[in-house]
Amino acid sequence: MDGDLTLLLVLDLVGTFAFALNGALTAVRVAHVDIVGVVTLGVITGLGGGIVRDILLGALPPATFGDWRYLAVAAAGGLLAFWFGHHLHRLAGTIAVLDAAGLSLFAVAGAARALELGAGPAQAVILGATTAVGGGTLRDVLLRRVPSVLTNELYAIPALVGATLAVLAARGGVEEVLGAPAAVGAAAACFVVRVVGMRLGLDAPRPRARPSWPDGAGGDPGDEGPRTSTG
Amino acid sequence: MDGDLTLLLVLDLVGTFAFALNGALTAVRVAHVDIVGVVTLGVITGLGGGIVRDILLGALPPATFGDWRYLAVAAAGGLLAFWFGHHLHRLAGTIAVLDAAGLSLFAVAGAARALELGAGPAQAVILGATTAVGGGTLRDVLLRRVPSVLTNELYAIPALVGATLAVLAARGGVEEVLGAPAAVGAAAACFVVRVVGMRLGLDAPRPRARPSWPDGAGGDPGDEGPRTSTG
Amino acid sequence: MDGDLTLLLVLDLVGTFAFALNGALTAVRVAHVDIVGVVTLGVITGLGGGIVRDILLGALPPATFGDWRYLAVAAAGGLLAFWFGHHLHRLAGTIAVLDAAGLSLFAVAGAARALELGAGPAQAVILGATTAVGGGTLRDVLLRRVPSVLTNELYAIPALVGATLAVLAARGGVEEVLGAPAAVGAAAACFVVRVVGMRLGLDAPRPRARPSWPDGAGGDPGDEGPRTSTG
Repeated sequence: MDGDLTLLLVLDLVGTFAFALNGALTAVRVAHVDIVGVVTLGVITGLGGGIVRDILLGALPPATFGDWRYLAVAAAGGLLAFWFGHHLHRLAGTIAVLDAAGLSLFAVAGAARALELGAGPAQAVILGATTAVGGGTLRDVLLRRVPSVLTNELYAIPALVGATLAVLAARGGVEEVLGAPAAVGAAAACFVVRVVGMRLGLDAPRPRARPSWPDGAGGDPGDEGPRTSTG
Repeated sequence: MDGDLTLLLVLDLVGTFAFALNGALTAVRVAHVDIVGVVTLGVITGLGGGIVRDILLGALPPATFGDWRYLAVAAAGGLLAFWFGHHLHRLAGTIAVLDAAGLSLFAVAGAARALELGAGPAQAVILGATTAVGGGTLRDVLLRRVPSVLTNELYAIPALVGATLAVLAARGGVEEVLGAPAAVGAAAACFVVRVVGMRLGLDAPRPRARPSWPDGAGGDPGDEGPRTSTG
Repeated sequence: MDGDLTLLLVLDLVGTFAFALNGALTAVRVAHVDIVGVVTLGVITGLGGGIVRDILLGALPPATFGDWRYLAVAAAGGLLAFWFGHHLHRLAGTIAVLDAAGLSLFAVAGAARALELGAGPAQAVILGATTAVGGGTLRDVLLRRVPSVLTNELYAIPALVGATLAVLAARGGVEEVLGAPAAVGAAAACFVVRVVGMRLGLDAPRPRARPSWPDGAGGDPGDEGPRTSTG
């Protein structure tokens, strides 16, 4: 029991570290941020998803924000990116795999936490995926990028797969609380989908040809916003 | 009584659907998002305003997020935009009117909910308008646009009108709870202002000539942010 | 006692006003926003930091949002910027100093409030800094700018200094509640660092040469987001 808890904590901290490192490296790469900015963006990438989940669950203050170990691990990831960012590109593959592991773990753990706190199954799936992709989304918004989860590759889909399997396993079982083997299976499925997607460069389906929508349609008329370059 | 509740629920779901459809169509039009992105942005546009309101009221978990009917209707709007977005431009006028109806309903219902939960009158007006425009604002931030509510046309003004009338009616009456006729009147006023504003292309007042503000003024010195093209 | 409370309230309102004025002036300067947009961005800059802090503390509804005096003062700052923005550039120096004062006060008051509500010391430092820089960050996100706190000059560092000193003073003392002299000292330190930083044009450290990171690294592969010009 105690061993289980410790393992879960270690896994969760590893995921937080991978997310923070990856988020801070993105910050170093795409924007002209200083040390505070790099560490802040690392911490937000590492903890942001869980914080958004806990806000939506009304479980405030957010669990990870209140635990200094998560803060310390996330800040360490950010500082590492700040100091060694120019060397770490050699480890890109390793970091991508760590990030996929973090995605899997966060999706499953987020869904399990939502169920524990009384969320319905659809909500738990959404909150699991939110836990997994929320931190990176906040980072992208702060860096003025369209969140990559909305546009690129299979990133949200594996998170949804993992969270859905976790919820199904919990619902199918006798108890609401997710057992360890089911959690591992759900996380593994998410991890495999993510890694295979990365290797094969798979994308989620896109809408057909862009409609040329007449300006003046409700709520969005002047439409002077930026577009992503779409070639 | 029960009939009233059902009518309100149906109206609220229609507004949610219109917002989600419109938000997802904007996503299809302006960014290179995949199916997950389109549906996510639809759901955020449909439910985001009410979620921000409930966070500020401390009414967590947010009401609409916890109700699967709202989630289902918003997701349906997003999927419709994904599959049929390239045809729907013929319905632009209808969708704009539905969107104006959603704006009216959300402004009034948001203000009423804020009063019910004990907010003061100024807060209730702000939260009514937030319910109406919050979802679209979140969508615009995620799509890397300056929120249209801040820049374009009469969109926030009718929401403020509707929310203010709703609060005045509730305060003027015997009870804090808004009666059905007053709610309908407030929503109708919002709707008329919005639709007339759209037809006539009215804008809210703008500041006079841009000041050429010296760089280095507090809090914002380097100022290397982007500008909107202002011709 | 009562006198102390009144002084604190006045200082807090002055800080809110300075932030709102400054935030609204930024909005007037960099974007094509209308009157609703200018006032909204002023209010968000003035109150946003405290609201984010209170959400993370679970102290909802947020204190300043529920107090009409804060709303009124922030709205007044926004309206002033809207009407007189083209004259106010002559007061840029004064406004920058007021903004630095607001930064100092918010950092210290935010940390003190976090301690009062039971946050740990690391959390209190983060929440103090969040109170000070959160409003400007929200404004920048809405205006589609990389938040200046992440990129430019010494803005976050003085806030962290002020919040850290406030937490150390409270921890060192007999009680958890911050005494007036310690609070004044912490705020003064923040103010001095900020003003000296402005005068000398100091920057926080930046990462070394940008790594040319191979595309395809986890979580952020397509990487078609915008870059800040780094020329």
